[in-house]
Amino acid sequence: MKILDGKIVAQAVKDELGSAIIKLKEKGLRIPHLAAILIGNNGASETYVANKIRSCEETGFKNTLIRLKEDVTEEVLTATIHDLNERNEIDGILVQLPLPSHISEDRIISVINPEKDIDGFHPLNAGRLMQGLPTFVPATPLGIMLLLEYYQIDTRGKHAVVIGRSNIVGRPMSVLLSQNIPAGNCTVTLCHSKTKNLAGICRQADIIVAALGKPGFLQADMVKENAVVLDVGITRVKDLQKKSGYAIKGDVDFDAVSPLCSYISPVPGGVGVMTIAALLKNTFTAYNTRMKNT
Amino acid sequence: MKILDGKIVAQAVKDELGSAIIKLKEKGLRIPHLAAILIGNNGASETYVANKIRSCEETGFKNTLIRLKEDVTEEVLTATIHDLNERNEIDGILVQLPLPSHISEDRIISVINPEKDIDGFHPLNAGRLMQGLPTFVPATPLGIMLLLEYYQIDTRGKHAVVIGRSNIVGRPMSVLLSQNIPAGNCTVTLCHSKTKNLAGICRQADIIVAALGKPGFLQADMVKENAVVLDVGITRVKDLQKKSGYAIKGDVDFDAVSPLCSYISPVPGGVGVMTIAALLKNTFTAYNTRMKNT
Repeated sequence: MKILDGKIVAQAVKDELGSAIIKLKEKGLRIPHLAAILIGNNGASETYVANKIRSCEETGFKNTLIRLKEDVTEEVLTATIHDLNERNEIDGILVQLPLPSHISEDRIISVINPEKDIDGFHPLNAGRLMQGLPTFVPATPLGIMLLLEYYQIDTRGKHAVVIGRSNIVGRPMSVLLSQNIPAGNCTVTLCHSKTKNLAGICRQADIIVAALGKPGFLQADMVKENAVVLDVGITRVKDLQKKSGYAIKGDVDFDAVSPLCSYISPVPGGVGVMTIAALLKNTFTAYNTRMKNT
Repeated sequence: MKILDGKIVAQAVKDELGSAIIKLKEKGLRIPHLAAILIGNNGASETYVANKIRSCEETGFKNTLIRLKEDVTEEVLTATIHDLNERNEIDGILVQLPLPSHISEDRIISVINPEKDIDGFHPLNAGRLMQGLPTFVPATPLGIMLLLEYYQIDTRGKHAVVIGRSNIVGRPMSVLLSQNIPAGNCTVTLCHSKTKNLAGICRQADIIVAALGKPGFLQADMVKENAVVLDVGITRVKDLQKKSGYAIKGDVDFDAVSPLCSYISPVPGGVGVMTIAALLKNTFTAYNTRMKNT
């Protein structure tokens, strides 16, 4: 059993981006610039955004954090995004989700200039992903593809089972794995809350992506020998032994499942840490594309 | 075994649209208007477009056919589409594919105003489909969904196997069947040319959509008892007994497979005849949306 070590792969991605940015600086060129919008004071969102900004700093990306109050109107948020859309020095825009309930996520996401939509949530980018065109792949599925590529896992013709049909993880993951691309060409089964005999389907899988958000859901009797298991779960579970009072649990019962696997991603240290690297990669792609087009 | 009779369902859809258009006329309102662009003299394209125009006439849709020469430039085609985008009385625009090889299909499709993209090929509409937002579903997958709904086939939690990952049939079909919508909520496996053990996967399916374009590919030993089989194939095969010199063959060996099925769509008379009804339904939807927004 080998660990799909997100820390190693994320660092490799960041090192590559960092070197590229140093070269840009040496040439006196403009530096890629990520802008993040954070609304309100949600604890998890604060942590996510802080981690993203810190990774920008470490890697050399310029960054701008815009904080808006919880009661900001949709009009003001829209205007803030329009401003970032128009500012030529901004390459990537992310609006940290979830938004306050009085604001429409669908409408806000569609306001972001698709060329700066480094989260890949704009429907135009989702459609380009579906059609196999160059696009921004959402951070979690992209992180998983980067893990599979780094460890040179042979995916072609393999049966992949994706559990969870969310717009930001399960759905794009299922599409990517079935496309004719590196780490693609799988036969993909997409499972969800209405799926019957999920255990039986999982037992057929060469590759399992668990993205349903139920801690410890995937058990040993659902996994065949030598399967590759990717754990997307990051649920906070009470744990009084931890200083923070909680532990992060994945969707996979790691102790029971890992002995069966050829490869498995742990939680933490697996898919989760890949997402910020993926986001920075998208920001660099946005920068490159925009530099070519101007 | 029951036949999924595309002629009956397509006629039902067209009758409903025809009645709605009669009511619009009675109220003195504007009539939905479809514009088709046909380039060159490809025989199959001529037939398809002629059938679409005839169905418009029968159902009461206004229609405009624009013919361009095989050697038309991409600039002229783009300008023609821009003109249709801007003409307020045009609700739906279709550009008959394939295009001459000197023109980029991707670029041309992205020129069509997404609100008039009744083929549902624009990446914005593909993305809206992927994200479960209101959109134009491409005609073949929409036709299949309408067949499943008409015959009230219980799809929830069923295992659907889609063979073929094209952008206009297999891919969107796989997404639709797995969404939380009527005739959706299937567990979906998407198979393609790299799939191993396709026969074994098909034998597990409650629903099979064969969209690979190989006449008679799906054999009896690939189908389990009481499966629902939808045949998307429409390949022309030499047949000297026919006046035309050819017969249209589906991807399913109908004689061998049909005795096993609970439902099966024949070729011709199944999925194929649904596509024009689906296109007109999309045109009517475009009309309704545009009338609401103005």
